[in-house]
Amino acid sequence: MTLAGKRVLVVAPHPDDEILGAGGTLAKCARQGGETVVLTVSGHLPPLYEEGVYERTLDEANRAHAIVGVGESIFLKVPSTMLGELPISELNGMIQDVVTRVRPHVVLLPYPDRHIDHRLVFDSTLVATRPVSIGAEIEIVAAYETLSETHWNAPHVEPNFTPNWVVDVSEFIDKKREALSCYSSQVSAFPGPRSLEATEALAMFRGTQAGFAYGEGFHIIRMCS
Amino acid sequence: MTLAGKRVLVVAPHPDDEILGAGGTLAKCARQGGETVVLTVSGHLPPLYEEGVYERTLDEANRAHAIVGVGESIFLKVPSTMLGELPISELNGMIQDVVTRVRPHVVLLPYPDRHIDHRLVFDSTLVATRPVSIGAEIEIVAAYETLSETHWNAPHVEPNFTPNWVVDVSEFIDKKREALSCYSSQVSAFPGPRSLEATEALAMFRGTQAGFAYGEGFHIIRMCS
Amino acid sequence: MTLAGKRVLVVAPHPDDEILGAGGTLAKCARQGGETVVLTVSGHLPPLYEEGVYERTLDEANRAHAIVGVGESIFLKVPSTMLGELPISELNGMIQDVVTRVRPHVVLLPYPDRHIDHRLVFDSTLVATRPVSIGAEIEIVAAYETLSETHWNAPHVEPNFTPNWVVDVSEFIDKKREALSCYSSQVSAFPGPRSLEATEALAMFRGTQAGFAYGEGFHIIRMCS
Amino acid sequence: MTLAGKRVLVVAPHPDDEILGAGGTLAKCARQGGETVVLTVSGHLPPLYEEGVYERTLDEANRAHAIVGVGESIFLKVPSTMLGELPISELNGMIQDVVTRVRPHVVLLPYPDRHIDHRLVFDSTLVATRPVSIGAEIEIVAAYETLSETHWNAPHVEPNFTPNWVVDVSEFIDKKREALSCYSSQVSAFPGPRSLEATEALAMFRGTQAGFAYGEGFHIIRMCS
Amino acid sequence: MTLAGKRVLVVAPHPDDEILGAGGTLAKCARQGGETVVLTVSGHLPPLYEEGVYERTLDEANRAHAIVGVGESIFLKVPSTMLGELPISELNGMIQDVVTRVRPHVVLLPYPDRHIDHRLVFDSTLVATRPVSIGAEIEIVAAYETLSETHWNAPHVEPNFTPNWVVDVSEFIDKKREALSCYSSQVSAFPGPRSLEATEALAMFRGTQAGFAYGEGFHIIRMCS
Amino acid sequence: MTLAGKRVLVVAPHPDDEILGAGGTLAKCARQGGETVVLTVSGHLPPLYEEGVYERTLDEANRAHAIVGVGESIFLKVPSTMLGELPISELNGMIQDVVTRVRPHVVLLPYPDRHIDHRLVFDSTLVATRPVSIGAEIEIVAAYETLSETHWNAPHVEPNFTPNWVVDVSEFIDKKREALSCYSSQVSAFPGPRSLEATEALAMFRGTQAGFAYGEGFHIIRMCS
Repeated sequence: MTLAGKRVLVVAPHPDDEILGAGGTLAKCARQGGETVVLTVSGHLPPLYEEGVYERTLDEANRAHAIVGVGESIFLKVPSTMLGELPISELNGMIQDVVTRVRPHVVLLPYPDRHIDHRLVFDSTLVATRPVSIGAEIEIVAAYETLSETHWNAPHVEPNFTPNWVVDVSEFIDKKREALSCYSSQVSAFPGPRSLEATEALAMFRGTQAGFAYGEGFHIIRMCS
Repeated sequence: MTLAGKRVLVVAPHPDDEILGAGGTLAKCARQGGETVVLTVSGHLPPLYEEGVYERTLDEANRAHAIVGVGESIFLKVPSTMLGELPISELNGMIQDVVTRVRPHVVLLPYPDRHIDHRLVFDSTLVATRPVSIGAEIEIVAAYETLSETHWNAPHVEPNFTPNWVVDVSEFIDKKREALSCYSSQVSAFPGPRSLEATEALAMFRGTQAGFAYGEGFHIIRMCS
Repeated sequence: MTLAGKRVLVVAPHPDDEILGAGGTLAKCARQGGETVVLTVSGHLPPLYEEGVYERTLDEANRAHAIVGVGESIFLKVPSTMLGELPISELNGMIQDVVTRVRPHVVLLPYPDRHIDHRLVFDSTLVATRPVSIGAEIEIVAAYETLSETHWNAPHVEPNFTPNWVVDVSEFIDKKREALSCYSSQVSAFPGPRSLEATEALAMFRGTQAGFAYGEGFHIIRMCS
Repeated sequence: MTLAGKRVLVVAPHPDDEILGAGGTLAKCARQGGETVVLTVSGHLPPLYEEGVYERTLDEANRAHAIVGVGESIFLKVPSTMLGELPISELNGMIQDVVTRVRPHVVLLPYPDRHIDHRLVFDSTLVATRPVSIGAEIEIVAAYETLSETHWNAPHVEPNFTPNWVVDVSEFIDKKREALSCYSSQVSAFPGPRSLEATEALAMFRGTQAGFAYGEGFHIIRMCS
Repeated sequence: MTLAGKRVLVVAPHPDDEILGAGGTLAKCARQGGETVVLTVSGHLPPLYEEGVYERTLDEANRAHAIVGVGESIFLKVPSTMLGELPISELNGMIQDVVTRVRPHVVLLPYPDRHIDHRLVFDSTLVATRPVSIGAEIEIVAAYETLSETHWNAPHVEPNFTPNWVVDVSEFIDKKREALSCYSSQVSAFPGPRSLEATEALAMFRGTQAGFAYGEGFHIIRMCS
Repeated sequence: MTLAGKRVLVVAPHPDDEILGAGGTLAKCARQGGETVVLTVSGHLPPLYEEGVYERTLDEANRAHAIVGVGESIFLKVPSTMLGELPISELNGMIQDVVTRVRPHVVLLPYPDRHIDHRLVFDSTLVATRPVSIGAEIEIVAAYETLSETHWNAPHVEPNFTPNWVVDVSEFIDKKREALSCYSSQVSAFPGPRSLEATEALAMFRGTQAGFAYGEGFHIIRMCS
């Protein structure tokens, strides 16, 4: 099922999640003539982060997005770990506004995992993509995995990620690696759980189990045909 | 995600399962220029059924297939409820041969449910569609629901069907109803669990929850892009 | 297992949920000499809704309740989507007070689904019905499904509704339809996900799979005998 | 939800399962004027067991049944662990015949667990109690737990028993203990997993968590009202 | 797998949870030369509790801890049911500080259940024990069951406790009972769900199903070797 | 939790499963002074395989076992895919005999997956390791993952592997790779799903998510302490 020509919206809780989860898919869509939009909901802002950190990750994000050919980058500037402080309807509305304007065919959102922000963005994005009005035009809603958070969900107590959709990114694994290495503030050295090597290992594992070399795995929530 | 131009293989344990589970999808694919093949694994043969019943259901199947535009109908002639008597590797091989010859883009198989034949066909089809050699060309493997068997799985002991893919069959619900009514030996009057009314109600329930009037729900097992 | 003579409490997050989930069951209980109480926790109040909307839905609710023979209607007047703003112990207490006063044999609560209010009411009602003191007198605690929210839970990430209890409402489907149509502010035209047609289709699907024409499905959480 | 006046059929794979799983419930039904039937599918026959063992357990069963007031005891005489050798349709038919003759309101069957015979009896009983024809008259189909098999299911790989129905057997725990001690060939001394002490501990655990002293827990598969 | 010589940290939402869930294990570790630390996060403080209640439970806790040989008792003094009022990062930090100082080999935390405080402590402890930096030294992270809360989770909607690790506390069941009876403000008389009898019954059930007389069951979340 | 000094039994359906699933763990145990035994249940015998294939894989197995320091290699010689033809009690008995003689502290068995032989060996090994008599001495029963079968289980229909135990094999990844490459008849070139590269990628993914470089993941079924 080709993504050629599709408009793809990736919702990222923080800068780097979009590359960890869907960097290769973004690059592939761009190559195939699709439009790609990344909505980054939260940022490394005070009070949890010092002044300046936000700008640094913003710069990293912009460079990473350029590498994988992101068409539009939207940053909402909610301070990291403060998403829960917003009234739910407000967070829902912020995401809904973007969905309404972008009118995506495919929405990729974070799997609800150990990081509370991931769960909140998951929840709000699902509300914003319900199959009513604009939402009824969406063809695929799917969750990506975020290395070193998704796999820290408690086994069999919390949901555990098992992909039912794998995108072949064999030709785009270099782009993914390159984009991820832009995030020098986020990526750790091997054997760090979010190292370049771990990211590539996951991609090889997902790919080889699906019939090709490198892949990105997704959990399809709703597909319409 | 359009199925236009795809080669679709529906594996049915018995005649009528393909219409119950995917009759509208078959009609839609045919209309959109795709090729459709139905593999019926088992039939109403002795010893469980009297002589002549098989021919009757075969005739019903052929008429139903014509209505939804099935391109090729394959009948394997294994006596119903006797699938378990075959060595597993033989059943696997029979299905694998068809997959290898047809080279489908999409394989639709029965959800493993209360009917033992459904579970055996599910198992063998999954083996035959593993993502190796020819299997690596398959884009979607998904399970359909079979009214009055799938929903008799024991809640929370056996797997319970929840669709993650719904095909809009609003324009094909008449074809589905018409094809199903060919199976006069299988369909019961309302409020029978496999009545025309129940079938249409399920289609309306699936459709309206996904954003349109009538739908057929599937559980995606593997999608590759 | 007859509900004849039972005192049934339906806890609804918003007006119309009680009819969508248990309208036929309410009508049946009333007919069979039981007492029925509906507790509506939240309402269409400012700030999310304009002045006057609340009164309109209240009026709709009262007319709907009259049709299905509700004995007592309690409205708590918490603004919709603001349930989460209340301290949990306060929400728990409000529901507990009603349970304590009503002393129901059967408590029907919303399945925890896409609507945050449904999850909060689910949680608080489960606390209020724990099998201690008055709670130990409750014979059945069960969750109903709310069309167009319950079925939007993410498949296999969030809990997915599968009924293990179906109430035969074949003789009461007209009452359910009539009561639901009182909620003209809430119900949409077909193929809307909460249309009268979709509601009836779900009832036919649940009923025919359980052995009768129309049914309402529930997920039993605790039954004592 | 009282079982008073109900006709209850307990399907036991082997002698003693009916007492382990539902001994108190059987005694309670009998006391409340209901009819109780126990269908024991398999027995301790050659080749796995020596001649004479069967008669001994039969005698134990009859004494146990007398204590809890079983109205009718049916023994099918399939050799233990040989259930899988029967064609499935034959096993289905044997159980179906009993269901058809008894016309029970309540059917209690073994939870599918570590013992292969339990899984086979579970499967065949579910087929025999489908909600069609006679099956549509059944009000409750539920699975009981069998100490020292049910709890050996692999956690989170196989289904794990969690009761949603608990029958208060506080007044019948003595009967249960007495009936179980008839099975001197099956029961082991404490701390054996199937000892009288372990059985009573489980009953106390189930009971106290549901609001009373001693209980028997069941997993409801289908309830109709 | 012996716990001899291990440093064990039990995180308790409220006083008595550590004994209910792991009292025997604590006593066994102490006997085997290990170090044990109990972190009690919340207390019976105003506004939910009257002045003086906190001191009483603190005294009960200290006596209970002495009986099972707890090496260090830490009390954080967050008012009960007010955990959700704290910013998540603050609660995370409080627990993380203790983990960092104690450097435990084994961390035992509450299973996420009906009590909201249990879910919040579960969440924060999982964040504090992620396998990075100090967390990578932890050998086992596991959840214990809390009688009369854990077993009130809604079956098959919320996670249901099934142990995959049982600690043989046959020699320590007297210590557990003795320690629990220190909590006279918390423990109810039989057949109360948190009575001494119910606690002992659960221990016997867990133990006998695992091969010994009395046991404490845990759900392993992460073990490293 | 160290495995130093433990007697470890790995049950492999076919030659190579023990290395794929637990090759590093076997090497580590051997290095740490433990005893390791591999029981290979089935072999590449006629009729599915030609004469001579069995001997070749036997030779490969012996060389692989030497590399990871297996102390004893037992081969049962049941023809591959013919396990289901054996009476279940016979297969159970064959495995039970080995367990009884070896008296292992740790038993590692295949996760029940797409390969029918894996499911049958899983079932029989669980029966053979029940916590009674010799079985009560076993400290850990855990399932390993078999690349390119385990991950082909249907998502959310069949059980999906999520490890709760990871063994650090960073120092033994070379041994694992070397042992696996002995199986030249079984291993395919990259990007084959069972290639050396895919195996190493999985090990890196498991390891980095658990706090170290390379790991082998297991699903703990029962641990006793």
